[in-house]
Amino acid sequence: MQELYIQQALSVQIGIKKSLRSGILLDEGMPVVLFFPDNTKKLVVLKRGKYTESKYGRIKHDDIIGKNLLGKFVKTNSGARILVQKPTIDEIIYSLFKRKSQVIYPKDAYAIISEAGLKRGDKVGEAGVGSGFLAAHILSVIGNEGEYYGYDLRDDMIETAINNLSLLGYDVSGKIRKKDVKEGIDERDLNAFFLDLPDPWNAVNAIYPSLAPDARIVIFVPTLNQVIKFLASIDDSSKFKINRIFETFSREYAVSKDALRPSPIQSSFTGYIISLVKISE
Amino acid sequence: MQELYIQQALSVQIGIKKSLRSGILLDEGMPVVLFFPDNTKKLVVLKRGKYTESKYGRIKHDDIIGKNLLGKFVKTNSGARILVQKPTIDEIIYSLFKRKSQVIYPKDAYAIISEAGLKRGDKVGEAGVGSGFLAAHILSVIGNEGEYYGYDLRDDMIETAINNLSLLGYDVSGKIRKKDVKEGIDERDLNAFFLDLPDPWNAVNAIYPSLAPDARIVIFVPTLNQVIKFLASIDDSSKFKINRIFETFSREYAVSKDALRPSPIQSSFTGYIISLVKISE
Amino acid sequence: MQELYIQQALSVQIGIKKSLRSGILLDEGMPVVLFFPDNTKKLVVLKRGKYTESKYGRIKHDDIIGKNLLGKFVKTNSGARILVQKPTIDEIIYSLFKRKSQVIYPKDAYAIISEAGLKRGDKVGEAGVGSGFLAAHILSVIGNEGEYYGYDLRDDMIETAINNLSLLGYDVSGKIRKKDVKEGIDERDLNAFFLDLPDPWNAVNAIYPSLAPDARIVIFVPTLNQVIKFLASIDDSSKFKINRIFETFSREYAVSKDALRPSPIQSSFTGYIISLVKISE
Amino acid sequence: MQELYIQQALSVQIGIKKSLRSGILLDEGMPVVLFFPDNTKKLVVLKRGKYTESKYGRIKHDDIIGKNLLGKFVKTNSGARILVQKPTIDEIIYSLFKRKSQVIYPKDAYAIISEAGLKRGDKVGEAGVGSGFLAAHILSVIGNEGEYYGYDLRDDMIETAINNLSLLGYDVSGKIRKKDVKEGIDERDLNAFFLDLPDPWNAVNAIYPSLAPDARIVIFVPTLNQVIKFLASIDDSSKFKINRIFETFSREYAVSKDALRPSPIQSSFTGYIISLVKISE
Repeated sequence: MQELYIQQALSVQIGIKKSLRSGILLDEGMPVVLFFPDNTKKLVVLKRGKYTESKYGRIKHDDIIGKNLLGKFVKTNSGARILVQKPTIDEIIYSLFKRKSQVIYPKDAYAIISEAGLKRGDKVGEAGVGSGFLAAHILSVIGNEGEYYGYDLRDDMIETAINNLSLLGYDVSGKIRKKDVKEGIDERDLNAFFLDLPDPWNAVNAIYPSLAPDARIVIFVPTLNQVIKFLASIDDSSKFKINRIFETFSREYAVSKDALRPSPIQSSFTGYIISLVKISE
Repeated sequence: MQELYIQQALSVQIGIKKSLRSGILLDEGMPVVLFFPDNTKKLVVLKRGKYTESKYGRIKHDDIIGKNLLGKFVKTNSGARILVQKPTIDEIIYSLFKRKSQVIYPKDAYAIISEAGLKRGDKVGEAGVGSGFLAAHILSVIGNEGEYYGYDLRDDMIETAINNLSLLGYDVSGKIRKKDVKEGIDERDLNAFFLDLPDPWNAVNAIYPSLAPDARIVIFVPTLNQVIKFLASIDDSSKFKINRIFETFSREYAVSKDALRPSPIQSSFTGYIISLVKISE
Repeated sequence: MQELYIQQALSVQIGIKKSLRSGILLDEGMPVVLFFPDNTKKLVVLKRGKYTESKYGRIKHDDIIGKNLLGKFVKTNSGARILVQKPTIDEIIYSLFKRKSQVIYPKDAYAIISEAGLKRGDKVGEAGVGSGFLAAHILSVIGNEGEYYGYDLRDDMIETAINNLSLLGYDVSGKIRKKDVKEGIDERDLNAFFLDLPDPWNAVNAIYPSLAPDARIVIFVPTLNQVIKFLASIDDSSKFKINRIFETFSREYAVSKDALRPSPIQSSFTGYIISLVKISE
Repeated sequence: MQELYIQQALSVQIGIKKSLRSGILLDEGMPVVLFFPDNTKKLVVLKRGKYTESKYGRIKHDDIIGKNLLGKFVKTNSGARILVQKPTIDEIIYSLFKRKSQVIYPKDAYAIISEAGLKRGDKVGEAGVGSGFLAAHILSVIGNEGEYYGYDLRDDMIETAINNLSLLGYDVSGKIRKKDVKEGIDERDLNAFFLDLPDPWNAVNAIYPSLAPDARIVIFVPTLNQVIKFLASIDDSSKFKINRIFETFSREYAVSKDALRPSPIQSSFTGYIISLVKISE
């Protein structure tokens, strides 16, 4: 059972790797996005013998696998034409990663990375790894030259994050540890630190000795009570200065030639981002 | 005169390079961010003999240069304590890049890059380079392994973009050309294409032959008339499918312990993002 | 059947009338709002022998009717305590009015009335009455001293609007007519005119002769294509000047002591409001 | 001096009264709105011998006074044509009322009135009258049949509010008192109560005995700290239930035929509205 799971994950991992390369035909294990006539879309992982159901009819994966269908149309059993394309990395992450917790969405992940000033080769820590969605973005920016250290309190989260990140080819099995960062961490000279914890005010002083003198710290919290508690914890003796507090949004419009307008009901809140700079004295 | 300019630019370029490395003391030519007591901040490039004025008094650059003041406080002539820190890349871009045109802000730049599925090693084109702000983000993601081709109609824009990008150490002098992409471009197999043009509907078909079969195309336009015109240009015979149309926002909160609230007046619109996928048949 | 309907409507009408007066005990036919422990609420019209189901158990209307339960708690069959209160007028309108069409919500209705400068005693016209939601707000402002003229193309809409408005005690049976305002209307000296039509650009000139010299005209449209078409229809020879184009929003927060935050998914678009002033020459 | 002020105020009061009636020619003391070619506008009170400066040239009030210029164009000294119209009530309030404090804007005033279920004839109280902007909206809804009681701690506020409201013909000179509502108020059976105080959590229990059993209470606060403190003050023994917590927005679009888009910088926050229902046991 466990072996089967590993084998499947491996197959998807290989498929994703292929998918992110150019000039590769659509093959079993590869994720593809199906674009339907009503401007909805669905990401599916191709598998021999499998079908994907839709309101336009059933799509046979064998009609796609091994065919040169990239950017072309596959026909459903009822004759509808469905566009087949490769997904972007973010479409892969947000469709294929398992979710064991509230996840951080691209709009927030990129804002967090921008605030942290993250770049290739950086050495970073993250407390509250969760399902590893932010970690995927961090790893992509710091690259192989960078160093990533994750901390979480729950075994199942750590396992989920490791499995999720392996899909993108990142091996972080030794890099995410079960640890309460409030007790301090061993790493030193981290360029950036990310906190997605219920009580970041209890953690920032503990991680202080691990930060490089020019480190940026970025906190993500889902409630205003937490923002206010964090603000209350900062005073003149604090070793951090708050740089910005903000929210991000994305407003979706219906893709309609004759009736362009925002989607009437949509996501309108995820969380608050607090960014800090270190004070060295 | 021109020589002096190049020399100064070179000095800033070296300063930025130093700034983006860890463990480097604050030196002449390096950009630093000054964080004031009222939660405002200012990025300045350090220069011997220079002063920066503020409502808290005058800051002498010589008090910072060569001192180990990173994350520490410099005193103004009237005794106020001002925190000195290194800037993030985005703080550098949005403070030091010259602006010859409306620029693309981080919130949009990152959303555009996410939609394009951009990754290390990609080969991309950009029409309407402007002052090079989006290009800075693109170059950072695709890295040295990637290939960037920019097109613009105005010599002064091209020069501005090349100078701006050189500050971050990117040499794109041969890569940004004066060209109307509506006449087609020579490059082939581009993974992604970015358009910041007044009339993208006139350009997408011309760039079509230059795109890889799985290319994503992302358009940025500042008006709804352009969104509607672009939608009107798409029909059943089109070689592109519209994936998403959206806006991004960032809502800033006052950094205030006792009066947390959004800033009453703030930026509330930049532009619309339209993302496309290629159709190959 | 029809008679039964009229009788029921009459009973509700009387109940609403009672409800909007102070010092009246809760009686059959009266609408009440049930506030549940999870901060949801429900408006029900009290009826002998009836029960209202909820996840907290079943509420027996006979436990409320005739009792002095205003602002007190009724117990469900499983013992939960549910607060009983009278509804506001807007809660009545948006719960009890039948909906035959997209309706105009309070946030837009009040903005429309403010733009029109509506006041007691005004003489107004409305084209595209729909289910009469905006009309309810208009009638409340202009009062008995005012004059309201509604126009709609559909018999079922007119009937729905008349029935809905009768619930609040407004008799507009002769005041809403089946008429295409593009052919002109007979009324004269209207202080304000409201248009909720698919093609307002085809209607404004036809209603022009019916407007007082200082009339304000307010248009509500659900798409950007309509806003752009309306703008395109205005030129130097136009008899109207556009005063404002805007959208309204309301952002709901979860009523939670420990986790104050905006509702993650909520209504984020209804329509655009265009307000005009008349040009007399 | 004081007399002159009263005389001027009286003249404006008469002018506004005239302005709000139909069929009245433009006369001295009347407010008019000047609509400029660039879609900006300005409200001015007409005065013999006076000029209004604009970037389109100087407008002579004597060219408007006594002329039948309603909805017509007045020429500036440089020949530009400026549209002259009567203002709406809200344009009058927000242009002519003096501001001694942060004021409540129409978008919030109407939302507050909707939440309170305010209607003609209601008996209401308001603590924290400020400059009287919300009171103007309240008085317009409750009409002469209603009763309004205002409370404020500052003499200058009370005077400002009384003068402002007199411009619309409301005489509230005996109705706004200098009083701390935290000590309780004498009025009874109020249908609605409005609080715009720094610490509403200290006031709600004091006003409780003055409220009718079906009263609605609406609180306006400018910070999240206040929302959280108010939430914290509510528990199972409370005599109020929180109905809604929300913010309102209005998004302005540039009135432009060829470049429709939201104004890039605009008001994006005013305050939070908390609405309560009374619990009677």
